[in-house]
Amino acid sequence: MFDQIEAITHLDRLFYPRGIALIGASDNPVRGSSSFLQALIEAGFPRLYPVNPYFEKAMGLKCYANIYDIPGEVDLAIIGVPRQLVPKAVEGCIKKGVGFAHIFTAGFSETGTDEGIELESKLVNTAKGKLSLIGPNCMGIYCPRSRISWTRHHENISGDVALVSQSGGHATHFIELAAEKAMGISKVISVGNASDLNVSDFLKYLLADTETGIIGLYLEGFAQNEGRDFYNIIRRSNSRKPILVWKAGKTPDGARAVNSHTASLAGSYSMFRSAASQLGLLIVSSIDEMIESILALKTLPLPGGPRVAVLGIGGGQSVSITDHLSLLGFKVPVLERKTQERITQITTEAGTMAKNPIDASVASVDPQNIRDLLFAIIEDKNIDSVIFHQNVGFLPMWKKRGAYIDVARIRKDLVKAVEDVKENSLKPVLCVFTSRSNKVEAFKEWSSIRDTFQGKGIYVYSSIEKAAKVLLNLHIRNRVRRLPGATTRS
Amino acid sequence: MFDQIEAITHLDRLFYPRGIALIGASDNPVRGSSSFLQALIEAGFPRLYPVNPYFEKAMGLKCYANIYDIPGEVDLAIIGVPRQLVPKAVEGCIKKGVGFAHIFTAGFSETGTDEGIELESKLVNTAKGKLSLIGPNCMGIYCPRSRISWTRHHENISGDVALVSQSGGHATHFIELAAEKAMGISKVISVGNASDLNVSDFLKYLLADTETGIIGLYLEGFAQNEGRDFYNIIRRSNSRKPILVWKAGKTPDGARAVNSHTASLAGSYSMFRSAASQLGLLIVSSIDEMIESILALKTLPLPGGPRVAVLGIGGGQSVSITDHLSLLGFKVPVLERKTQERITQITTEAGTMAKNPIDASVASVDPQNIRDLLFAIIEDKNIDSVIFHQNVGFLPMWKKRGAYIDVARIRKDLVKAVEDVKENSLKPVLCVFTSRSNKVEAFKEWSSIRDTFQGKGIYVYSSIEKAAKVLLNLHIRNRVRRLPGATTRS
Repeated sequence: MFDQIEAITHLDRLFYPRGIALIGASDNPVRGSSSFLQALIEAGFPRLYPVNPYFEKAMGLKCYANIYDIPGEVDLAIIGVPRQLVPKAVEGCIKKGVGFAHIFTAGFSETGTDEGIELESKLVNTAKGKLSLIGPNCMGIYCPRSRISWTRHHENISGDVALVSQSGGHATHFIELAAEKAMGISKVISVGNASDLNVSDFLKYLLADTETGIIGLYLEGFAQNEGRDFYNIIRRSNSRKPILVWKAGKTPDGARAVNSHTASLAGSYSMFRSAASQLGLLIVSSIDEMIESILALKTLPLPGGPRVAVLGIGGGQSVSITDHLSLLGFKVPVLERKTQERITQITTEAGTMAKNPIDASVASVDPQNIRDLLFAIIEDKNIDSVIFHQNVGFLPMWKKRGAYIDVARIRKDLVKAVEDVKENSLKPVLCVFTSRSNKVEAFKEWSSIRDTFQGKGIYVYSSIEKAAKVLLNLHIRNRVRRLPGATTRS
Repeated sequence: MFDQIEAITHLDRLFYPRGIALIGASDNPVRGSSSFLQALIEAGFPRLYPVNPYFEKAMGLKCYANIYDIPGEVDLAIIGVPRQLVPKAVEGCIKKGVGFAHIFTAGFSETGTDEGIELESKLVNTAKGKLSLIGPNCMGIYCPRSRISWTRHHENISGDVALVSQSGGHATHFIELAAEKAMGISKVISVGNASDLNVSDFLKYLLADTETGIIGLYLEGFAQNEGRDFYNIIRRSNSRKPILVWKAGKTPDGARAVNSHTASLAGSYSMFRSAASQLGLLIVSSIDEMIESILALKTLPLPGGPRVAVLGIGGGQSVSITDHLSLLGFKVPVLERKTQERITQITTEAGTMAKNPIDASVASVDPQNIRDLLFAIIEDKNIDSVIFHQNVGFLPMWKKRGAYIDVARIRKDLVKAVEDVKENSLKPVLCVFTSRSNKVEAFKEWSSIRDTFQGKGIYVYSSIEKAAKVLLNLHIRNRVRRLPGATTRS
């Protein structure tokens, strides 16, 4: 535990190290620290020092027999040797004056065996007061600005989103998905067993970090006494930065799994939920959902309330979307009389529904109609947000049937229409594009639409479930922002 | 209302008509009954009679000015004319001696307007005792054995699965997905406003129908007094055929949407749930889930209880799957000591978890290991079913990193391993293959694996959410089968 200023000065060195030693690295890319060496070389980090007495070179770089043989300054060592050798490797780091050791190796307290627990305790005692540990049993740190990476996703752009994760797998997934969605990252930290530096330490750092604006957490549980620290840190931050949390170990069996994974105590999920709600945390239950909510927070206005308008084609589809939204606590209220009249003027066909949900039937084929309908709806006083849904297989099917339709032109006009509404609306408009087929061809069609919208900064959703969860988080963030004492940025 | 024998004799003629008249058909494939004519021609139904006084021909077939000009026998008329003209068209059908009129046209009681309600009531009175109505506001019937289709999915094979739906959109989705998964269909019926023949009539028919073994229902609600009939029909069937129900209109807003869609009264969802549970109905909440549950019922043994083993790679992933299963009421219990020992002999690596969930870590790259692990697990007395999960991007990533891996061979061996276990197991084994990327390339990879397994009769799931819902329905079906008086087929 150190105070905030110290925390920043101290951990800045971890994310911007003068040199990195890779203990146990070799040419085999799938073992130990070698995969980190490979990733760091490709990411372009310049001062890398493999340490391995059995080789002259690793991945083309000179190998040192001992860490203290390295001539340059080393602030971070990544240790990937068999667990029995880890304490000795840490002693070497101390001798060299390294500030941080990231232990990739697993097989410590998470095994639940006496041997594993003792080994971890030995490690902590060796390090105490001399060097800070990340892990063991983790992927360590990722920081695109300083070219530190553990994956081959170098297309990652730096940005203001951070993640602290008790799972290396979920953290890697976060980095990969962020790259696909061009979401910029400040820092990702995989803490594993968190025998020394823990989630709270990194959270405190990220709350003060000027490079970070939004924080995601994947939490399995806390070590004894850590919980109170954690909640106090969040309370003191006054909701300035949005914090999204995926909490695992929600049930007794889940909690037991958590203990086998990172030796954490999951605690009661209902207590977590109640604390999270008081503190204005945004709860998610997957990495996808976390990233989709973050992108929505960055690109959409917050809704003023829970009243949603649903626009699309298909009676059954309109009903099931309405059901889904209402079950989450949203309202799908009847529109104002004048809005209904405007809608009926646009959708003249029998079989349309104008009250809300709005089934625009075949009128929704024309993007000009969609534009007019969306403008009519966002002006309605009974509505706080809009969900526009469309089955992307509909147009190609019509065309196949022999209708005279220019699918490409319609798609282009639709993007323009939605863009136009978005630029002129203080209410969020979320697009749900579904594909009813699971064929590769249908997925291609869907993803080309997604990419076109994404190119304009509009993130679309593949299901109502996903859109509804995002909308719920926008709604909660709006409530948090209004709490007395809250100082928010979005 | 007619009794069971009558119902069958009567409705057989609807599904196996001697001739079909298409009232209002023209060459424009996206309007009225023309799209039905187009679909029927392509499906190869031989005795089609377009009726339209303004044209000589429609889609290459001779047009009749009046239905009673048709020389052959006509058992079914599909009516797609403006709503004001529908009652007159029905009168023509009666004059011709047609037994069934399917009204595609919308704009009746579902509009909630006096005009619409009166028009529907006029229709019903005209038909009463002379002809049976399907609809209005619906897609009518689909029967691959008799070559009756409303879509262009002619690759549909006939089989023993039926659906009755209050949404034409959802019914079409069902047919499309069934085709993709090579699931054979007996009959699909879209009933729309169900002004005459309703869900209960068709359900009674399907329960007696020798071509039908499993029944799906998409229900929005009932007309006055229909509910009791419906539940009595199901009660009397003694759970012989599995019945899967998606009930919409679960909330006040959803119920209002239902009323705008098909003029039905949704009723209380909690009352529906309690009745459904007593009657052994399997509840689903989407068409995907319905089809996935049906295919599981057809291809997997039923689990003897709620205890699941979870096998795969990744600690975080194992935890979140365990959480998800436990939240649905499943148990993920600790395995027997001897099973844990067998697992530890196979997964020698540190960082594995052997208790359950089982994180086999890198050992799961070798299909022989997966085979051995699965055999060890299904023999465990604490376990009723198994979920095996794998991220399909893992192998290609390792290969990219430079590991010596023959991805194609490993994939082939994995299919063989799972097939082998499936053939020798009385417990269900469900495969969850996830793709962490949303790129087209990743989807191709995923779908090629899915198709290979599907070719062997093994249906795989793209998420734990989907697999868990399917497993829940297998579990409920097993309980239903054991109820006193139940006479089941699967």
